[in-house]
Amino acid sequence: MDYREKLIVAPGSKVRLADIDPDYHGEGLSKQSAKGEIDSLLDEIAALQFLLYAEGNHALLIVLQGIDAAGKDGVCRHVIKAMNPQGCSVVGFKQPSTLEHSHDFLWRVHLRAPGMGQVAVFNRSHYEDVLVARVHGLVDDSVWQRRYGLINDFETLLTENNTTIIKFFLYISKDEQLERFARRLEDKSRHWKISESDYTERRRWDEYIAAYEAMLQNCSTAHAPWYVIPANRKWFRNLAVSHIIKATLKDLNLQLPKPTVDIDDIRNRYHAAVARQRRERNADS
Amino acid sequence: MDYREKLIVAPGSKVRLADIDPDYHGEGLSKQSAKGEIDSLLDEIAALQFLLYAEGNHALLIVLQGIDAAGKDGVCRHVIKAMNPQGCSVVGFKQPSTLEHSHDFLWRVHLRAPGMGQVAVFNRSHYEDVLVARVHGLVDDSVWQRRYGLINDFETLLTENNTTIIKFFLYISKDEQLERFARRLEDKSRHWKISESDYTERRRWDEYIAAYEAMLQNCSTAHAPWYVIPANRKWFRNLAVSHIIKATLKDLNLQLPKPTVDIDDIRNRYHAAVARQRRERNADS
Repeated sequence: MDYREKLIVAPGSKVRLADIDPDYHGEGLSKQSAKGEIDSLLDEIAALQFLLYAEGNHALLIVLQGIDAAGKDGVCRHVIKAMNPQGCSVVGFKQPSTLEHSHDFLWRVHLRAPGMGQVAVFNRSHYEDVLVARVHGLVDDSVWQRRYGLINDFETLLTENNTTIIKFFLYISKDEQLERFARRLEDKSRHWKISESDYTERRRWDEYIAAYEAMLQNCSTAHAPWYVIPANRKWFRNLAVSHIIKATLKDLNLQLPKPTVDIDDIRNRYHAAVARQRRERNADS
Repeated sequence: MDYREKLIVAPGSKVRLADIDPDYHGEGLSKQSAKGEIDSLLDEIAALQFLLYAEGNHALLIVLQGIDAAGKDGVCRHVIKAMNPQGCSVVGFKQPSTLEHSHDFLWRVHLRAPGMGQVAVFNRSHYEDVLVARVHGLVDDSVWQRRYGLINDFETLLTENNTTIIKFFLYISKDEQLERFARRLEDKSRHWKISESDYTERRRWDEYIAAYEAMLQNCSTAHAPWYVIPANRKWFRNLAVSHIIKATLKDLNLQLPKPTVDIDDIRNRYHAAVARQRRERNADS
């Protein structure tokens, strides 16, 4: 299945999340049957990332958004970990610092955009400025309303500089979120992460859904598309995300750079030197 | 074996690399017998990194230095990859940019120092400013000579802010380097990395060794020790590096933060909500 085609938010289209099933998990797939496919996708991603790094002529930016417990950290742990850490950075955007806050909302994300040959993963991103900022009224309506266009302009700038952008909205149901919160309670190593706001934010579920829908329909562009990933099943989420990253990298037609030196000439010189070294070592012993 | 004790450069001691065997590979170990130990060390590192991240009260800075082909990239690929990429950044320091060059030599590394809860790995570092800068005479002697003290002061600043520093000098023999260069020639995917300077830099081998020795004896301090890792055998290098990272993290006695909320109270509320949700779902169907 081509999950890019299936899960993309077509630019300019209306989005109603109620029409999308967060429990969707492919056709006739199971956790067991998907495992082999995920593993081979991760191997392909690792190989393609090596080419991206070697070529040094493209960058990849992956944006992860989703409500609390949607699985953003899980994607980092299970998918992004396939990449060589040299050449891949994960940036978690929290509440802006005083310095960050004294600049425009794109300043801090621009600083962390990937350089050529690099992959950057934004765990939360500039989209928080049209999500939490909107739902909590942190800025006037006229401010967040203008941000959709500013974001599209910013992403155009990055893509015109050979940065490929993939944006994943991890979509879980309200029931699934509650089940995950409840499961966290049974894992002592995660108690420190639990906060009162986990639960109180649930009251704003419908407002968040409206904000996500606006984000998806205003900012899914041909050059920086949004994908809605049904994420109630973690294994399907990992499969779909891996598939889309792999397919996107594949399309870049990445190539190893040509050698900058005459390999045959160097081979002759090295082989002579190695032979000399070995002769000397044998003479010594 | 306690590889920290065995491989540390004792602060204040003289270092003669000629007295250290780059081919050393433990006592009675083989690649096969070490594999299980490396795997379990990597699992422990991953668990300890989770605690570091959760606690958010310590940072870890790992510095990798070594001559070309010594295995700095290999350590990233085989050891650092065990860590969750969220919470671990690898920074490769190349020739300084114009902006970087317009500042003092520690400015660009300070920018990339790890925040609390984070691990940063420097693949090459501020030590290049007493290595390549010295060997190639990029600055006056009086400039690089003063840098040892400036580096120690800088590392004191970081450690006083709860950053633990581990510095690995990956030590290979001149023969091993040549063998590795020769092997690279047989791997087409690595031809693009080969440069004329690989070979010409070998002529300065002895000058580099002298620069490494000065770095090790001037900058191995109680708070930021250097370890000389015999690195002719990649598996032993990985074993020793993993062992030292694990032991250092272990000594921090990292603890999960206490929950900030009343877990029992939340459990009762969640369980009631989940039960209600399930009842409603059953009533619907």
